[in-house]
Amino acid sequence: MDFSSDTSAPAHPGVIEALGEANRGHAPSYGADELHRRLRAALAERFETEDFDFWITASGTAANALALSVMCAPTGAVLCHHEAHIARDERGAPEFFTGGGKLALLAGSGGQVDEAELRAALSAIDRDFVHETPAETLSLTQLTECGTAYDRARLTHFAALAREAGLNVHLDGARLANALVSQGERPADMSWKAGVDVLTLGLTKTGAMGCEIILLFGAMRARFAELRARAKRSGHMPAKMRYLAAQALALLADDLWLSLAGQANKAARQVSNSLCAHPGVELVYPVDGNEVFVRMPGELAERLRAAGARFYPWPGDCHRFVCAWTTGDAEIEALNAALG
Amino acid sequence: MDFSSDTSAPAHPGVIEALGEANRGHAPSYGADELHRRLRAALAERFETEDFDFWITASGTAANALALSVMCAPTGAVLCHHEAHIARDERGAPEFFTGGGKLALLAGSGGQVDEAELRAALSAIDRDFVHETPAETLSLTQLTECGTAYDRARLTHFAALAREAGLNVHLDGARLANALVSQGERPADMSWKAGVDVLTLGLTKTGAMGCEIILLFGAMRARFAELRARAKRSGHMPAKMRYLAAQALALLADDLWLSLAGQANKAARQVSNSLCAHPGVELVYPVDGNEVFVRMPGELAERLRAAGARFYPWPGDCHRFVCAWTTGDAEIEALNAALG
Amino acid sequence: MDFSSDTSAPAHPGVIEALGEANRGHAPSYGADELHRRLRAALAERFETEDFDFWITASGTAANALALSVMCAPTGAVLCHHEAHIARDERGAPEFFTGGGKLALLAGSGGQVDEAELRAALSAIDRDFVHETPAETLSLTQLTECGTAYDRARLTHFAALAREAGLNVHLDGARLANALVSQGERPADMSWKAGVDVLTLGLTKTGAMGCEIILLFGAMRARFAELRARAKRSGHMPAKMRYLAAQALALLADDLWLSLAGQANKAARQVSNSLCAHPGVELVYPVDGNEVFVRMPGELAERLRAAGARFYPWPGDCHRFVCAWTTGDAEIEALNAALG
Amino acid sequence: MDFSSDTSAPAHPGVIEALGEANRGHAPSYGADELHRRLRAALAERFETEDFDFWITASGTAANALALSVMCAPTGAVLCHHEAHIARDERGAPEFFTGGGKLALLAGSGGQVDEAELRAALSAIDRDFVHETPAETLSLTQLTECGTAYDRARLTHFAALAREAGLNVHLDGARLANALVSQGERPADMSWKAGVDVLTLGLTKTGAMGCEIILLFGAMRARFAELRARAKRSGHMPAKMRYLAAQALALLADDLWLSLAGQANKAARQVSNSLCAHPGVELVYPVDGNEVFVRMPGELAERLRAAGARFYPWPGDCHRFVCAWTTGDAEIEALNAALG
Repeated sequence: MDFSSDTSAPAHPGVIEALGEANRGHAPSYGADELHRRLRAALAERFETEDFDFWITASGTAANALALSVMCAPTGAVLCHHEAHIARDERGAPEFFTGGGKLALLAGSGGQVDEAELRAALSAIDRDFVHETPAETLSLTQLTECGTAYDRARLTHFAALAREAGLNVHLDGARLANALVSQGERPADMSWKAGVDVLTLGLTKTGAMGCEIILLFGAMRARFAELRARAKRSGHMPAKMRYLAAQALALLADDLWLSLAGQANKAARQVSNSLCAHPGVELVYPVDGNEVFVRMPGELAERLRAAGARFYPWPGDCHRFVCAWTTGDAEIEALNAALG
Repeated sequence: MDFSSDTSAPAHPGVIEALGEANRGHAPSYGADELHRRLRAALAERFETEDFDFWITASGTAANALALSVMCAPTGAVLCHHEAHIARDERGAPEFFTGGGKLALLAGSGGQVDEAELRAALSAIDRDFVHETPAETLSLTQLTECGTAYDRARLTHFAALAREAGLNVHLDGARLANALVSQGERPADMSWKAGVDVLTLGLTKTGAMGCEIILLFGAMRARFAELRARAKRSGHMPAKMRYLAAQALALLADDLWLSLAGQANKAARQVSNSLCAHPGVELVYPVDGNEVFVRMPGELAERLRAAGARFYPWPGDCHRFVCAWTTGDAEIEALNAALG
Repeated sequence: MDFSSDTSAPAHPGVIEALGEANRGHAPSYGADELHRRLRAALAERFETEDFDFWITASGTAANALALSVMCAPTGAVLCHHEAHIARDERGAPEFFTGGGKLALLAGSGGQVDEAELRAALSAIDRDFVHETPAETLSLTQLTECGTAYDRARLTHFAALAREAGLNVHLDGARLANALVSQGERPADMSWKAGVDVLTLGLTKTGAMGCEIILLFGAMRARFAELRARAKRSGHMPAKMRYLAAQALALLADDLWLSLAGQANKAARQVSNSLCAHPGVELVYPVDGNEVFVRMPGELAERLRAAGARFYPWPGDCHRFVCAWTTGDAEIEALNAALG
Repeated sequence: MDFSSDTSAPAHPGVIEALGEANRGHAPSYGADELHRRLRAALAERFETEDFDFWITASGTAANALALSVMCAPTGAVLCHHEAHIARDERGAPEFFTGGGKLALLAGSGGQVDEAELRAALSAIDRDFVHETPAETLSLTQLTECGTAYDRARLTHFAALAREAGLNVHLDGARLANALVSQGERPADMSWKAGVDVLTLGLTKTGAMGCEIILLFGAMRARFAELRARAKRSGHMPAKMRYLAAQALALLADDLWLSLAGQANKAARQVSNSLCAHPGVELVYPVDGNEVFVRMPGELAERLRAAGARFYPWPGDCHRFVCAWTTGDAEIEALNAALG
């Protein structure tokens, strides 16, 4: 009963198998290998465009921070939700990679930026007023830190507002697959067609060993050379990059990534149902993916822990339960048994 | 006949096997897993000490730059050979991670720092003269960029000179295994016992998928918390770190790393013998590891390439041939055939 | 009727005179001059201690950012009020000088940090939780951005709370003189005796041409060498530093700085009285120094502007009137006339 | 007999007088004042163009580093002479301001870049080879650190070589006035007409209190907004900027800067003549400005010091004598007397 995080789950066996297959013979280093070429084709198909460039990292923090470093100048700011992973959980990575850029935090319930806050922040930008740091990028998160998903219309609307104000748009898609499945959307519609300039596509939480893809769409491709140079100097251009591409290929093949996300989402709905059927348990946010946030009596939390359930307390006086592709009937049954 | 680089070789099958074994069930993220605990014990045994802390990265550039970032202030400098990897091949990674520190370059033949140069640089340090950037760290490379090895006495002597001048000592051991084998030395004798404060122990070129270990010895352990925080914010604390530890364990077990390095070294000696037996070919540096640098007629280089040999031209009007753990009789025979 | 800012006022004539006197003959560069020695003595007398080191800059932004750069690591955060000058008006200077450190913003009315907010932020620090950025410094502002002053007890209390939590304490004293005068306090009591580790003592707004002194008290003196090196590399060690010391000496002599601050404070009280005597005008914050914040009918603001008054609109739907040492009866009378 | 540095000289009285005149009444802060407008016109006249933007700092280190920060990316390098002030005497300021850019050092005698070295460095640039740091800027120094001047043809030639290779060109003109006088050249011919994109025009050593002007010519004007933002966040946008403009105006008026440089140059020639007339004294570099480098018997150096002469030993086993606008007949006579 490990609901602590989707990052404590193992990789899907298909990923390990793919590493074994990638491990045959010599191959060019630094991304010039055959698997990278095949991955490009696979991404083009999934995202329904050829107008993109990409880079793979083994870390989500690196993928977000590298992406932002080519979107926002050292003298600029990134608008994001005050609970965003880039603001709260990455130890200053965006500030480090941008060379001292700022994050400007926006309020909003359920982990989603509030529209009035966004509009106010955008209209307050005065690029000629040298003393204040102008926002240059809007970074949204899909799923949000509260496990909710922006629906397509809202995502598209917010991206349009940002663009009108002269900002570019970043999407932290550490759990994008979960959102795609729950919203029934296609990758293109939740990214470049919605106005996203740069996407951080997370596969680690979905089922990879460590694989996050930065996609630069359209005009942002002009920054690819800079992205690559920054990846190099930050140690995110490991020599044997074929193993990163191999992971991505294994998960994109036959849309395994979406199947795994679907399994995790389904498990989360079951966890939510089980928990909420219990008196005194209250669901805090809609379950739009693989995360369940509930408020529950302390006595119950202790009982669950005693029964072997692992989960974290969370800001807002609640608890977070995360399901992974590994969460199956056994865990749900054990949870139900513990709930009594 | 791929002599282009040891990074184009695949991982040893034992490494992939270890990843499969590590892929069972859930495990704590961020280095709190069981494999990390076992790796600590394995490192303690190999390095004959408990007085160390360590961090694993997937990239050698990251390992070197992170190490230096806790050894040298933004207002300080790192002394290193002018051909050192950190100076020539890492796109400013040390400058980025240290926050703007400088590299001060030293001359010396065969990739090794010249003692007179080192002494002059050390005696020129004046920490009270605020205009100049004082060296705080000496970084040596083992094997050097010319494939040579510092012998133990020389390494120990240079480290002692640095320490007397108030510097700490970093060893870039991207190919340390090759040096250990060729010099017949124990890991402890080529690191902390020789006066090395921080070692970057490379395993990628030896046979890992991507695995470089930073070891902080003795007093430098006080900087471990800072190292970990800097690893986090630079994206070198991926969630599922167990797979990094698994690679290291597979290579340290039964000293597989040294066996593989020995194979590569042996192949290099054969390559060297084959090449040098040919008229007009001249060995440029001693072959102390798995790299061979020769000067050869352009016509011969073309002939070898036409026969399918891959190798790089190198500064100093020569060519570099690198052997990996995969280089075997087939490659040597093919090379001999091409040489005619 | 220029109430736009105290930085639009000229320097006090005594400052210019001091520059002329300092301009005699050759003098050592970089702070080794006689005037620096005399300034040290003057500061020791005013601050009733010898246990300090100091550095002068021509810019308040530089003084704050340099101070913070030796107080907070790149991996740490500075707690400050969300309207603090370092957060809102310095274009990311703290992030730049610290090498990517973060500012963590606290709420509070009247420009002053709210105690409950501060306590919550301090108790939330978990230095072992590597993902979040731990606060290392508390930065308070005296006068605040709303023109209010922390009284001595509150300043001392907040500093003690910070220290108990392991933080050091910075005071941005861009308008410290105004606070000292209005609170009737001695410099020592509002700085090191109150628990302030590093003070940025502003003299520019008081009457200098450009002169801000960073004072490191007690244990923070250990960071002076680093401060000096960082000043050098950031261009805040100009060659002819005697002219910075000369300004400070001129203002400290006979406590001219306090006299000038007193004049400005008195003028501010008069402006406040005049404005508030007018129907529909409401004082927004207490006038603890030389700044007056009022809410007023738009029609009145227009009328004042038409009569030649210069002042800025301010966040919170109000207007800011700043008095300088130059604000005298003529301005007050003109204001009264315009008010009708 | 102070020949230690031109920075130990006082400002010209006209500069102090100008500060007094600038000190009348209120004036807009941050460079929006009337004196800045007048300075723009004065610079346009001296440099025979309107196609420029400018920024003033009080520090030469800041001026150089700010200039380079808008010319070279964090992933790029600046080519400069190995003895250049930016490389040797600014404590890593270029690395700090560029966000971790590198300096690539070139050899050459007399402080001047060697043409073959420059050509080799330019032809080695491979922007597609991500591992190495490509040079983006050539920075030359006029006068050089050895007191020599590039003649116009050579400066123009080097700038053209750099431009052909895709680099932009920076000129560190800390002592440009001395070079202009000795070479009999006009400011335009030694800057933008010679292919210089960004000039750091030093006036401090010439006779200011602290005043260095960054001039962006032609296409580089597009980076002015970034330069201003970087100046702000690095503390080089002090509130009362009128006093910086006032200094520059005073020195440009009636070409006082060139007169003062001419006086210093003349004194240097006299010093050189006096020293070289003495047996055993050897001139090391041509005297193209206000600096004299000689090799002399240790006994003689001691005698001069005993007689009260101040001068510094210099790398290359020589001594440096610097003349300022203040160096007059009295100093020369005293020197002659000491020489005996």
